[in-house]
Amino acid sequence: MAGNSFGEVFRVTTWGESHGPAVGAVIDGAIPGIEITAADIQKELDRRRPGQSGVSTPREESDTVEILSGVFEGKTTGTPISLLIRNSNQHSADYDSLRDTPRPGHADFGYAEKYGIRDHRGGGRSSGRETVGRVASGAVAKKILAEYGIEVVCHTTRIGSVWADTNLSLSFDEIKENIEKNLVRCADLKAAALMEKEVDAAKTAGDSVGGIVEGLIRGVPTGIGEPVFDKLDADLAKAIMSIGAVKGFEIGDGFAAAEFTGSVFNDAFEIKDGKIQTTTNHAGGILGGISTGNLIRFRAAIKPTPSVSISQKTVNIAEMKETEISISGRHDPVIAPRFVPVGEAMAAIVILDHLMRNQALRLSKTNLNQNNQK
Amino acid sequence: MAGNSFGEVFRVTTWGESHGPAVGAVIDGAIPGIEITAADIQKELDRRRPGQSGVSTPREESDTVEILSGVFEGKTTGTPISLLIRNSNQHSADYDSLRDTPRPGHADFGYAEKYGIRDHRGGGRSSGRETVGRVASGAVAKKILAEYGIEVVCHTTRIGSVWADTNLSLSFDEIKENIEKNLVRCADLKAAALMEKEVDAAKTAGDSVGGIVEGLIRGVPTGIGEPVFDKLDADLAKAIMSIGAVKGFEIGDGFAAAEFTGSVFNDAFEIKDGKIQTTTNHAGGILGGISTGNLIRFRAAIKPTPSVSISQKTVNIAEMKETEISISGRHDPVIAPRFVPVGEAMAAIVILDHLMRNQALRLSKTNLNQNNQK
Amino acid sequence: MAGNSFGEVFRVTTWGESHGPAVGAVIDGAIPGIEITAADIQKELDRRRPGQSGVSTPREESDTVEILSGVFEGKTTGTPISLLIRNSNQHSADYDSLRDTPRPGHADFGYAEKYGIRDHRGGGRSSGRETVGRVASGAVAKKILAEYGIEVVCHTTRIGSVWADTNLSLSFDEIKENIEKNLVRCADLKAAALMEKEVDAAKTAGDSVGGIVEGLIRGVPTGIGEPVFDKLDADLAKAIMSIGAVKGFEIGDGFAAAEFTGSVFNDAFEIKDGKIQTTTNHAGGILGGISTGNLIRFRAAIKPTPSVSISQKTVNIAEMKETEISISGRHDPVIAPRFVPVGEAMAAIVILDHLMRNQALRLSKTNLNQNNQK
Amino acid sequence: MAGNSFGEVFRVTTWGESHGPAVGAVIDGAIPGIEITAADIQKELDRRRPGQSGVSTPREESDTVEILSGVFEGKTTGTPISLLIRNSNQHSADYDSLRDTPRPGHADFGYAEKYGIRDHRGGGRSSGRETVGRVASGAVAKKILAEYGIEVVCHTTRIGSVWADTNLSLSFDEIKENIEKNLVRCADLKAAALMEKEVDAAKTAGDSVGGIVEGLIRGVPTGIGEPVFDKLDADLAKAIMSIGAVKGFEIGDGFAAAEFTGSVFNDAFEIKDGKIQTTTNHAGGILGGISTGNLIRFRAAIKPTPSVSISQKTVNIAEMKETEISISGRHDPVIAPRFVPVGEAMAAIVILDHLMRNQALRLSKTNLNQNNQK
Repeated sequence: MAGNSFGEVFRVTTWGESHGPAVGAVIDGAIPGIEITAADIQKELDRRRPGQSGVSTPREESDTVEILSGVFEGKTTGTPISLLIRNSNQHSADYDSLRDTPRPGHADFGYAEKYGIRDHRGGGRSSGRETVGRVASGAVAKKILAEYGIEVVCHTTRIGSVWADTNLSLSFDEIKENIEKNLVRCADLKAAALMEKEVDAAKTAGDSVGGIVEGLIRGVPTGIGEPVFDKLDADLAKAIMSIGAVKGFEIGDGFAAAEFTGSVFNDAFEIKDGKIQTTTNHAGGILGGISTGNLIRFRAAIKPTPSVSISQKTVNIAEMKETEISISGRHDPVIAPRFVPVGEAMAAIVILDHLMRNQALRLSKTNLNQNNQK
Repeated sequence: MAGNSFGEVFRVTTWGESHGPAVGAVIDGAIPGIEITAADIQKELDRRRPGQSGVSTPREESDTVEILSGVFEGKTTGTPISLLIRNSNQHSADYDSLRDTPRPGHADFGYAEKYGIRDHRGGGRSSGRETVGRVASGAVAKKILAEYGIEVVCHTTRIGSVWADTNLSLSFDEIKENIEKNLVRCADLKAAALMEKEVDAAKTAGDSVGGIVEGLIRGVPTGIGEPVFDKLDADLAKAIMSIGAVKGFEIGDGFAAAEFTGSVFNDAFEIKDGKIQTTTNHAGGILGGISTGNLIRFRAAIKPTPSVSISQKTVNIAEMKETEISISGRHDPVIAPRFVPVGEAMAAIVILDHLMRNQALRLSKTNLNQNNQK
Repeated sequence: MAGNSFGEVFRVTTWGESHGPAVGAVIDGAIPGIEITAADIQKELDRRRPGQSGVSTPREESDTVEILSGVFEGKTTGTPISLLIRNSNQHSADYDSLRDTPRPGHADFGYAEKYGIRDHRGGGRSSGRETVGRVASGAVAKKILAEYGIEVVCHTTRIGSVWADTNLSLSFDEIKENIEKNLVRCADLKAAALMEKEVDAAKTAGDSVGGIVEGLIRGVPTGIGEPVFDKLDADLAKAIMSIGAVKGFEIGDGFAAAEFTGSVFNDAFEIKDGKIQTTTNHAGGILGGISTGNLIRFRAAIKPTPSVSISQKTVNIAEMKETEISISGRHDPVIAPRFVPVGEAMAAIVILDHLMRNQALRLSKTNLNQNNQK
Repeated sequence: MAGNSFGEVFRVTTWGESHGPAVGAVIDGAIPGIEITAADIQKELDRRRPGQSGVSTPREESDTVEILSGVFEGKTTGTPISLLIRNSNQHSADYDSLRDTPRPGHADFGYAEKYGIRDHRGGGRSSGRETVGRVASGAVAKKILAEYGIEVVCHTTRIGSVWADTNLSLSFDEIKENIEKNLVRCADLKAAALMEKEVDAAKTAGDSVGGIVEGLIRGVPTGIGEPVFDKLDADLAKAIMSIGAVKGFEIGDGFAAAEFTGSVFNDAFEIKDGKIQTTTNHAGGILGGISTGNLIRFRAAIKPTPSVSISQKTVNIAEMKETEISISGRHDPVIAPRFVPVGEAMAAIVILDHLMRNQALRLSKTNLNQNNQK
């Protein structure tokens, strides 16, 4: 109800403020008997961490995860998994001026209006730091999905005016590999170099740039997704739009669908390798909210970082008078590349949750046989 | 869990198949004491009904709503409102050939895979007829929202290659008025005429066209929306993406955000008429998932109608062999204009649900005073 | 949130007022492919119907169920099952005097305080007629459970001062059979005759009597129930306590547990027929909230019918002055026997819901193989 | 779904195993602006802690709570409150023999059957230590309720064969005071002395005893509780029955209702001090699932501690052979007194959750005025 949980069967609750003692997550509904270690989670947290280069904030976040429950002798037990990541390196005093002055493009104003009280330091709960809990939980989801041959990858396809070449037709694995080779996480390595330049230019100008990220999910079996309201793409849309800075979501051809005719947009069915498949994939792997067995493909529009050092007009709420603000400090000039691990995490959570929801319908007589009593 | 309910406090459950005895909805959580009549609901159902022209299917759906519970002496009582609409004019035999043959672009294949059994007649539960329950419930939500000065309108901004002129700067009321003047529900009357021609051409060709619809919500107070996962725009995204044929969702400038710099995209705060407002509205009325008090503005991408009379490749599932299909019968050559009342309904449900969720936090000592005992 | 739904996977929503046009229920999450007919549901509704004798109200309720969706060619499809039962034989004018005068022991006062408006006719939503939707939904749950060899029965063990003999040690099947042989639904036929006399005496005095009903569930496999908060017995307690007039719930030995020592109360484990079982069943088939594979046994305390013709003190709310009330009309002098089909329905819903919830955890690689694609 | 959360608006999720690194809870939905300190929570944790006497286990649990989020400058912010309590003093090796040997009366067997893997040390998730998260969350609920003048107290009314005198008619405040004066938390000080003797005798015999605890809630306004399924007493029943070792729940006169006639059991309405009240309170403050404004009164049946040093029959699951077990170590010979703070916590959570749920319906035009914008 208050919005800090996601998922119905595999249910993640995140908590924590940017400059509080810690951030973390509790996962309820993890499948028992899956091997999971702190290192599995740490790997994803490290991918989330801002780097040392110009494209991401130089803030030193060590982000060491501690598994507090739900894992016994290296395996999940089916009980809640509590994940704790202590905050460090907080320059809370940097934010004193923001106590009554909402930053344009930030959630500050909304929180003040909604709650009448807020932890203003570093954006508090609305900080990008909130995604630590998402990424840690997503790491568990990814580990479980891997057991079923399901994998997620996100990659940057646009930053500012630079687009990745859509004719490259890189494989899923090539994309996975390439995005770790550059700071903007673009699989088209030529475009990546141009994107980095665009980011540097924005940084120099005290400004920031937007972008687009594509997500791919392979291995999802047919029949996953719950009509009517909990369509698989509707839940993916919610999951992705719930990530800060995302302004749009598309599945398959998305907004380009408007320019197609039905006879071209429809994906024809055929039999291939003894399976029913579609000849094309305009739909993006989901029809009527249910997976078709094809690659699932979505895109997210990411706005430019709202924290810019260029001076902006705002209002002091306490004094109710207009003022100006220039946001100094450590801020990424672009969010899209940092969206990548978060988008993967949320997509993984949606897919796992829906796999388990679908499973609830598959009650069978043999399933009733329990573990010890044969 | 099984996906036929939406909303947490104002919760709508829809049911019914296209060619079953009836379709309907149950609303749990309506605010008590609100005047509502069958005519209020009928008005929206009539807007949803396909018309007589070339742009919508000639099927005669009378769609008369019956209020079965939750309203007493013309007012809501706070108990569940059950709405029943009998189906009529069913040509179920038309669909016999579809029993084992999924239509490309339709949900048929997914339902067969998921459930192993399905009512294939007219698409069964996945038919566009499922939206009757959404529109009927949305009519109740709209009526309640009107009590609080909140209003929703959707209008077509693109069909095929024709765009509405974005420089017209029509007011909210002008848009509401104009969309009832043409069959494509476009507020730009010149563009509307061209859109109608594009639709007619598709129909003549036995084909169909896609489109884009914009939604506007005025009067939403500040502070509505629940961080982190239940952001107001995330829930709007889910609500809109859950409507059949929708392939994309944007809030504010949406995908265009990628081409902006932060200093331009950020909406500066100012004081106007004694209130804190923003000078621009690139965000679309929502920041950090919480309403800013501005006009909320979103867009949905609608794919072309999948039912086309042009022959398409498909597979007979029972015999596991490839075949062709040509879908005759009554089908709209465009979905976008029919999305309009459904999109309004879903947006209204999201806003009302979040208003009530926000209210739960506003427990106060005076609120504890009950009705009779002063 | 507003309380008219029950269950998480197998989710039932009921609606309807006593003197409105109809009552009914929507079931979301029924397992697909199960045979179900209107007759299966009608059978349970007929058991719920008040009879012709002194122990139940002579009101003629025909209660014919119509299945409006979710069943195709005699089988469930996995989509919502909408059940409609029209109301008839309404003497609404009988209730005019109750518009502003809450009946002692009834929900009238609470509804007036909570909503500020209520359908006072026959108790409106708080009428015992609300259980029609429960019983109809429970009939579907029972039918599905039967596929898995699970069965529920409730039987009256006390009415007023008369107790059923606990030393009779009747079998589950004998209890099922015996309760249909008498009006108080007591499996001890000797006690039943005495109970009927006690009820008749109360009726003659213009008064009413309370009772106790026991529920038995056989065939539940081990491992069902979700710790920590959704223990199987906690959810059974909620389900049973949510039925009007129930004032207490026990599992296993219940309140008598207080007088035991641990060494006696603990059920020792043994191996029998190659299975792990317990030598006794003080626990009532549930330990730590999880089923042990034993017979599940619970009891409900049912208060005497609050509608009595003996004059009682109450208050006219509109005029805020004290008055007296004598409730004439058709009222059962005892509720316990009528609780039987309702208790069975709710218990069946809880067990089926938990079986499906448990199933969600049992995701396996082979389960991912879908229907058509081998 | 997986059962580790409770409440809809004020929603508590607990996590942690007895011998894992820590236990804790996350509260989502706390009302913003309420003063809360670690000391407020610590006070309740200290009440939960086992003492030094014969009636409770001598285990040294320091149980120091750390507030990790959701509180800023001493006040709740409306964001999730994360509470962490490190485990200490673990003698995990004591439990090695229990890896494959379920203890009679414990949840061990069910966990093994359900999950196929379990942390057997100290009962893992099913340990009484799980209640730390409940009590910590309940402390927050109690603090918020106090702002609205609502208070909860639980007190022991029976241990083994000793009953508290029901004719003492102690006030709510006297009960609160008295229970802190003795180790069994009985408000009748004479009975308390006898109860302590009964407990000591059981301990000496290597056995344990059961008990009954009564809960009282004062200050709940009228109109709280959601019909039909989420009746206030149904949710209280679930909350209380979800606590380990509870075997029964009663509201008001409970099981004794069976022996009343309706004319006596009904609580007549009268006007007193300008308010509508009832002359008696057989109902226990709740009618039709909605609060009447009266004192809410419930009782819980608590089974004897299952851990006894007397030898018991059980089974080695791995070897599938029968064996015996004698549970040594630190175990309370009675659970009832330790139920007191846990029962209070759960009752407080239910009441606060329902107050907030009820508030969602009370949307008004003036409520829409937000904080800053007048």
